[in-house]
Amino acid sequence: MKLKRKDLLGIEELEKEEIELILSSAASFKEVSEREIKKVPTLRGKTIMNLFYEPSTRTRTSFEIAAKRMSADAVNISVSASSVKKGETLKDTAMNLEAMRPDCIVIRHSSSGAPRMLARYLKSSVVNAGDGSHEHPSQALLDMFTIKEKLGEISGLKLAIIGDIAHSRVARSNIFGFKKMGASVTVCAPPTMMPRGIETLGCSATYDMEEAIKDADVIMMLRVQMERQNEALFPSVREYSWLYGLTPEKLAKAGKEVIILHPGPVNRGVEISPEVADGPWSLILNQVTNGVAVRMAIFYLLLGGVKE
Amino acid sequence: MKLKRKDLLGIEELEKEEIELILSSAASFKEVSEREIKKVPTLRGKTIMNLFYEPSTRTRTSFEIAAKRMSADAVNISVSASSVKKGETLKDTAMNLEAMRPDCIVIRHSSSGAPRMLARYLKSSVVNAGDGSHEHPSQALLDMFTIKEKLGEISGLKLAIIGDIAHSRVARSNIFGFKKMGASVTVCAPPTMMPRGIETLGCSATYDMEEAIKDADVIMMLRVQMERQNEALFPSVREYSWLYGLTPEKLAKAGKEVIILHPGPVNRGVEISPEVADGPWSLILNQVTNGVAVRMAIFYLLLGGVKE
Amino acid sequence: MKLKRKDLLGIEELEKEEIELILSSAASFKEVSEREIKKVPTLRGKTIMNLFYEPSTRTRTSFEIAAKRMSADAVNISVSASSVKKGETLKDTAMNLEAMRPDCIVIRHSSSGAPRMLARYLKSSVVNAGDGSHEHPSQALLDMFTIKEKLGEISGLKLAIIGDIAHSRVARSNIFGFKKMGASVTVCAPPTMMPRGIETLGCSATYDMEEAIKDADVIMMLRVQMERQNEALFPSVREYSWLYGLTPEKLAKAGKEVIILHPGPVNRGVEISPEVADGPWSLILNQVTNGVAVRMAIFYLLLGGVKE
Repeated sequence: MKLKRKDLLGIEELEKEEIELILSSAASFKEVSEREIKKVPTLRGKTIMNLFYEPSTRTRTSFEIAAKRMSADAVNISVSASSVKKGETLKDTAMNLEAMRPDCIVIRHSSSGAPRMLARYLKSSVVNAGDGSHEHPSQALLDMFTIKEKLGEISGLKLAIIGDIAHSRVARSNIFGFKKMGASVTVCAPPTMMPRGIETLGCSATYDMEEAIKDADVIMMLRVQMERQNEALFPSVREYSWLYGLTPEKLAKAGKEVIILHPGPVNRGVEISPEVADGPWSLILNQVTNGVAVRMAIFYLLLGGVKE
Repeated sequence: MKLKRKDLLGIEELEKEEIELILSSAASFKEVSEREIKKVPTLRGKTIMNLFYEPSTRTRTSFEIAAKRMSADAVNISVSASSVKKGETLKDTAMNLEAMRPDCIVIRHSSSGAPRMLARYLKSSVVNAGDGSHEHPSQALLDMFTIKEKLGEISGLKLAIIGDIAHSRVARSNIFGFKKMGASVTVCAPPTMMPRGIETLGCSATYDMEEAIKDADVIMMLRVQMERQNEALFPSVREYSWLYGLTPEKLAKAGKEVIILHPGPVNRGVEISPEVADGPWSLILNQVTNGVAVRMAIFYLLLGGVKE
Repeated sequence: MKLKRKDLLGIEELEKEEIELILSSAASFKEVSEREIKKVPTLRGKTIMNLFYEPSTRTRTSFEIAAKRMSADAVNISVSASSVKKGETLKDTAMNLEAMRPDCIVIRHSSSGAPRMLARYLKSSVVNAGDGSHEHPSQALLDMFTIKEKLGEISGLKLAIIGDIAHSRVARSNIFGFKKMGASVTVCAPPTMMPRGIETLGCSATYDMEEAIKDADVIMMLRVQMERQNEALFPSVREYSWLYGLTPEKLAKAGKEVIILHPGPVNRGVEISPEVADGPWSLILNQVTNGVAVRMAIFYLLLGGVKE
């Protein structure tokens, strides 16, 4: 069983059946990480490169652990912004890495579209681990997996995504994914963080958080990029938090029990209050656990290892 | 055979029998690194994370090699000071890493107590690889192992520890360890580097190096943190070296042959002269070799692998 | 089958038969990277350390992949310039690493001679991964392998090396290597980049690029170190490129088809034009692929693993 494609670049181009295939494969791989011996020989002799142009301890670690638990050889390559400046083109770097015969290159890059460009040139599989404000497909897949695992079904659910929608690849991938799976999506942001025409992606949009979370089954809070404060996207952290932070009070107005997701890392007391992040309806840590399983499934379905 | 605890946080809370168990296990693991094929399957399928908030090539490498020689999957995570500032809390980082199902998290952190705090929250084993000026238990264990290997017994020995006692986690762990094993310990430092009330830990203290090393069986020199010079802990490197550096002349006054230890990296000509560091009684490189064996034993006893 | 030596420090001291042994071993290892399962158990239980004092994504990755495809444990150690300043001596670092019982230390260092100095002190094998402007033997071996693979023979060929000869360890290693294998070598550089007395190495030298490439069978372009511009080695990138860059026009004057090599990373439009770098006679990516095979052969011949 394999995907119909050599690369995982975004949720936008995936068919619903492909998403379902990834989610069901992930369910069977999840069990591996709960074993006494967390290792299967599925991808022995495969080489997986983690090529990160932006630092991300969490995502890189998740991909690395997924690779190692499947017995693949994982090679980490961090490229700092400074070395990009004096160095070769992204295409040359990728062609050179490919010449070492990896089976898969996982890439994170600050430029939207970088993974797609590489995928066109490379014979090896390319997995987008986040590109600019474009897509972060493995994140959306682990979010969908987490919801499906908890609620059984995604179809018919109401998802609210709250935060800096304009700069969020997580939001975009999730809008595509949850829509395809039959959920309805509302995005909510202050005007400076709301991209024009977002509704053309098939979601509704509002500046009013109460409206967004009313009747929601799932609330996905986005991380505030504290380093973006200078860009004047919001007057102050305090005001942002007051208007768009998820607190027990706001949650109470949702009128029912509602699942909380967050892609992490969490800014406690900014976009989400500690009581909510640690509360019974928060699945934030489940997301992280499921991330390893989903990435194992992605590797398995792209590299076509023999399942044992 | 396992330790009575899930974590190795410090020597202070270990029972003498536990120390002996680690030392005897290390003796059997030491042989692995001398083989043609330096690898045992003991921890296959276990995941060990090296979470370092302070850079340390040597200690990280030692833990990494110990993990790999036992066939565990080792994942390195370096957290720079800058990323801590803008990032999530230590607890959140650890909870998130734990959600990826490691079996053990090895942590080095500049704050005393950080490993203990994590251990309380985490189900996985936590190994303290050095926290602030608190403890560095694997270092003390490898020091004890080295002495036991050389002299057969620790009980009854006289240990002198010389250097910046106030800021040294190595000194603290060794005071606890050698005392428990029946040695007597004298610490020696200039007044600015001697913590008040150090005698309450059960050692004697002196500002006079000749007095400290007179009759000592083992002299442990501590590294001068050259980067601390601005704190005016000592007037000049030259004066420090003159008063507290270990030279052949001072060693001659010890009156007998005496073993030299140093946790490394060595500042040659500062706290120890090259003739002493490279002399016949220096066990500095033995300490490094034994570090791998002791860390293999720690992993084995905490993670309960099957010994083969 | 092993080399006659414990270390690979430079091409200068290798005998022709040793070069041939490495090249023929590499030919048999190359096939491993083309398999579905790119892994042989040859070096299981061996520990290979990559000790890099200069950053080099490409070379480090190539050595790491070579080690992992032979089932060795690879440990990466990056030493930044800043930590060297406050730290221990190179010899102490190496002695300490050796105390952890690696089988091989691969070292890149900005000082010519650093690997040789280490090799004298260490029992483990030392592989020079580039030292100052001295040698980069694995690069020359992969260059020779690439030419032999393409043309069948090195003997009798004419090699032109063009660029900053004075600062190039790649040039030096290749002059030694191709000469030993029976090729004739011409080096070409602007006067500021041509070392005095280079002809004593057995090559001819010219400032005139047309002369250098006339009748050449192989042209090896060297990377312009853009960061060296301030040293006034050349008036401007544009002038350098005009005089010493390899363009289709200059190539046409060579009068026949000629193979193009470049050690990478390529500065497109500076020392080589894109049409040439991507043209049918460029073997730049073959060089990278062959680098893994050559490094596998080096590890195999030095560490004496059992070939299977």
